[in-house]
Amino acid sequence: MKPLFEQMTIVGVGLLGGSLARACRRRGLAGKIVGCGRNRATLEEAKRLNFIDEAFTDPAAAARGSDLIAICTPVGSIAGCARAMAPALREACILIDVGSVKAPVVEAMGKILPASARFVGTHPITGSEKSGFAASDPDLFENAKCIVTPTPSTDPDALARVTGLWRELGSTVLPVDANEHDLIYGAVSHLPHIVAFALMNTIAELKTRQGQAIAVYGGNGLKDMSRLAASEPVMWKDICLFNRDAVLDIIERFEDTLDEIKSAIGREEEDYLVKTFANAREVFELAARE
Amino acid sequence: MKPLFEQMTIVGVGLLGGSLARACRRRGLAGKIVGCGRNRATLEEAKRLNFIDEAFTDPAAAARGSDLIAICTPVGSIAGCARAMAPALREACILIDVGSVKAPVVEAMGKILPASARFVGTHPITGSEKSGFAASDPDLFENAKCIVTPTPSTDPDALARVTGLWRELGSTVLPVDANEHDLIYGAVSHLPHIVAFALMNTIAELKTRQGQAIAVYGGNGLKDMSRLAASEPVMWKDICLFNRDAVLDIIERFEDTLDEIKSAIGREEEDYLVKTFANAREVFELAARE
Repeated sequence: MKPLFEQMTIVGVGLLGGSLARACRRRGLAGKIVGCGRNRATLEEAKRLNFIDEAFTDPAAAARGSDLIAICTPVGSIAGCARAMAPALREACILIDVGSVKAPVVEAMGKILPASARFVGTHPITGSEKSGFAASDPDLFENAKCIVTPTPSTDPDALARVTGLWRELGSTVLPVDANEHDLIYGAVSHLPHIVAFALMNTIAELKTRQGQAIAVYGGNGLKDMSRLAASEPVMWKDICLFNRDAVLDIIERFEDTLDEIKSAIGREEEDYLVKTFANAREVFELAARE
Repeated sequence: MKPLFEQMTIVGVGLLGGSLARACRRRGLAGKIVGCGRNRATLEEAKRLNFIDEAFTDPAAAARGSDLIAICTPVGSIAGCARAMAPALREACILIDVGSVKAPVVEAMGKILPASARFVGTHPITGSEKSGFAASDPDLFENAKCIVTPTPSTDPDALARVTGLWRELGSTVLPVDANEHDLIYGAVSHLPHIVAFALMNTIAELKTRQGQAIAVYGGNGLKDMSRLAASEPVMWKDICLFNRDAVLDIIERFEDTLDEIKSAIGREEEDYLVKTFANAREVFELAARE
């Protein structure tokens, strides 16, 4: 099979970028894969393992000649990275990012990139509390959802080719408006993480009478929840700030819901509690659906 | 190996009671196993599968002659069950429960049971969002923690035999004061469940522009969290009300912590957010420890 792209540059060879390089390599989707990152040792390791062909620490040098550039850095670094690459981009080059917040990225790209560059925002719904190249996995995108956020000015050919790339990697591609994406993921991803961070900090402050941390008493439920809270702190700081308005709104909705449950416990409103807890099951069934 | 108990009565043949019957049967820990429940069909099925030898819907009839009685009903039904059995208890009979709240149960038992009966509160830290006999598993207690809550008046021989039972089933037995248990599990179990219920209700109220439920966009994080929220509503209503004071206190601590994070996001306090999110990892490591 002919590669989908002649030369692919992947900026940020961490969990997502590293997995993307390995997944594309295994499936022969790129004629040549160029890696770019700040950590020279990681790049050399990726090259030694034959996941990338060339390595650069300078984004402009890494971008030169590529017909696909995937920016796989934390949300807070995407614009700076695009700015550094802008003068070096090949004519009609396609750029994607994999950030968890889309509207500010899509907007920034419109200002930063030259008119000939073709940007498509993407967000693969995968990953874990692990981060870094060592956690990368060539099957990470298999059976996952991948959101794409085209705008009216997105080039249709670029959108088709980016959609094709994610499909080849095993993902189900769902187009969603960038602003709506940020509201949806503010609720189904950012809020759960923030709640998990708050929960673990609450628990961390409590000790047994013997001064022991109480977390050691937890069961599988705590383990599941604390896994979210073990996510990369700088990445999640960026996500919270880039999606600030949606996140603040959704935290307030959550606080209202929790307050109602708290009041019902205080007033021993049994029927309300049973109804509310039963209602939560509905979401479980939707979330568990593939 | 000689059975640990001549005759064991298990009241409530659901996830925990059913698993206890199957685990004891497989390991030959009871000479005879008597099942008790409200659902005649479940009891007959358990008997047909040879997990129990006899079945009763009347607790007093089920209790007669047993040297171990395990009350595996929801927390709200334990006292009523003990009251019904009290007149029929064999001399020096040992009783345990498996409820998620301990202090009110331990206190009630002291009043309800005759002086010759020997009660030990226990709480196996296992289970899942599933409930009912169909979800029972003879290996449910393997590699799990089991809290026991002896008081100064607990019979030492009964405590030793109950500890021995849970150890035979593969659990690590941890003695904890009943009041302290309720504070610890208010934080490491009840709060995570309540937060998960509130989170799922918040998400359930939000729809896409096309009126679609947004939960279908969720990834593995949401799936993990929603699993907690799929727990049995009546059981959790009971837990919240029986551990009301501790639960209300811990919800308030959580709300304070979440409010601080919300303020930090609003004020874009990057350092605070990174520090707070990183702190949450500590709990992950403790909770993941076996």
